[in-house]
Amino acid sequence: MDILNIVKVGGNVIDEPKILKEFLNEFAQLKGYKILVHGGGKIATRVAESMNVKTEMVDGRRITDDRMIEVVTMTYGGLINKNIVCILQSLNANALGLTGADGNLIVADKRSETEGIDYGWVGDPRAINSGLLISLLENDIIPVLAPLTHDCAGHLLNTNADTIASMIAVALSDHFKVELNYCFELDGVLQEVGDPSSLIPELTSEKFNELKGKGAISEGMIPKLDNAFSAVNNGVQTVRVMSHQSISNLQNLSGNDCTIIG
Amino acid sequence: MDILNIVKVGGNVIDEPKILKEFLNEFAQLKGYKILVHGGGKIATRVAESMNVKTEMVDGRRITDDRMIEVVTMTYGGLINKNIVCILQSLNANALGLTGADGNLIVADKRSETEGIDYGWVGDPRAINSGLLISLLENDIIPVLAPLTHDCAGHLLNTNADTIASMIAVALSDHFKVELNYCFELDGVLQEVGDPSSLIPELTSEKFNELKGKGAISEGMIPKLDNAFSAVNNGVQTVRVMSHQSISNLQNLSGNDCTIIG
Repeated sequence: MDILNIVKVGGNVIDEPKILKEFLNEFAQLKGYKILVHGGGKIATRVAESMNVKTEMVDGRRITDDRMIEVVTMTYGGLINKNIVCILQSLNANALGLTGADGNLIVADKRSETEGIDYGWVGDPRAINSGLLISLLENDIIPVLAPLTHDCAGHLLNTNADTIASMIAVALSDHFKVELNYCFELDGVLQEVGDPSSLIPELTSEKFNELKGKGAISEGMIPKLDNAFSAVNNGVQTVRVMSHQSISNLQNLSGNDCTIIG
Repeated sequence: MDILNIVKVGGNVIDEPKILKEFLNEFAQLKGYKILVHGGGKIATRVAESMNVKTEMVDGRRITDDRMIEVVTMTYGGLINKNIVCILQSLNANALGLTGADGNLIVADKRSETEGIDYGWVGDPRAINSGLLISLLENDIIPVLAPLTHDCAGHLLNTNADTIASMIAVALSDHFKVELNYCFELDGVLQEVGDPSSLIPELTSEKFNELKGKGAISEGMIPKLDNAFSAVNNGVQTVRVMSHQSISNLQNLSGNDCTIIG
């Protein structure tokens, strides 16, 4: 089987045009099959603000009412996705942007009210059309996925990008040796908050539970690592949490990352 | 050769959710290969307004400065394109949305200053990647194109949707018998402004020039018909200007349209 690198990028990387461009330049040079999955919550919040749409978050999750689904559709599916595709094209990387509605790529269930909280137009993925991704990859196209899915009933749904990355990694692991790379502004998972020298080279689920227990792994990291463990426990060959700056060197990482051990 | 229907829809059709849904319902039922090209200027103007971005038009063309290219990227590539794709998916039509940057579909030249007017990030298409469209169509996917192109140097460009429809029709006419259908809120081209009974069933370029001369064909229609004549003079089998309500009956039109004669 061929290797497929799935790279998730979010947070401060997308938010800074210069950093994004550097990152995409490294991503463009990665050899072999690859897929990029992006987030963009900070930019969505800024666009919402400029349209006088109020952003409401519960436990780091966006309440997505009628107006907010329009904002994230514009921001994730339009502004961010098309800018990334356009920059990659300028780097001779044949990118093609997709939401989960395009080609029926990702079908999701609208999340029902949870503990009294109505998240609105938020979806939890149920099915991946991996055939479309395989066919694009085999035609030398690089899929660039926005964090939007659909419910097959005419509604777009706001969906966590880490979850999308994990689920497509699992869905494609029958066909490729999948390496899933969660890239962000830190080097990986830290033993001690704020101490870069405490980087954990390999994270087992036991260690994960221990660090959660003592509060060393914070709120935003918990769902990300849940997605990472879900991938590695369901057929994905390698899962890493790493700095976006290490992307140039995926085949030869020198410990500046955290590999997830299922 | 197989028949390919290219349908351009714009104006008041996209602007009204109920009318759009009815139109897409008819479009979804069209048999055979098909492509949808959409505009959406009115919605872009509304989104711009809500973000305090000033809309400036010269001869019906949008001045696209740094902020306006963001607005149209969000509106055309995100909001409108993904909503159309999502509605088509709910009608069992396997739509996939694209801008000209996706898969390097449409390369354009940034328009240089014309008669002292700097249109900004506006592009005139130069090359179509028809192979991508053919490959999608042959995989039973319905491409849905937003009026955005790119310059291969990392910039998205705002591009007239009528021009995109005409150029892809020409590019695909080596491979398909292309029927290009410009759909809008009127029945077709009128001999007398405001008199629906004066519909012209067939428009030759002589007649076009005559009607332009006496002012019966107004500003917005002139570039549309220029694009229509360009298509029919460059290998496209059939070009029609028609009501969006006639789309259900493309194979059996009863005179409620205007066929362009090259």
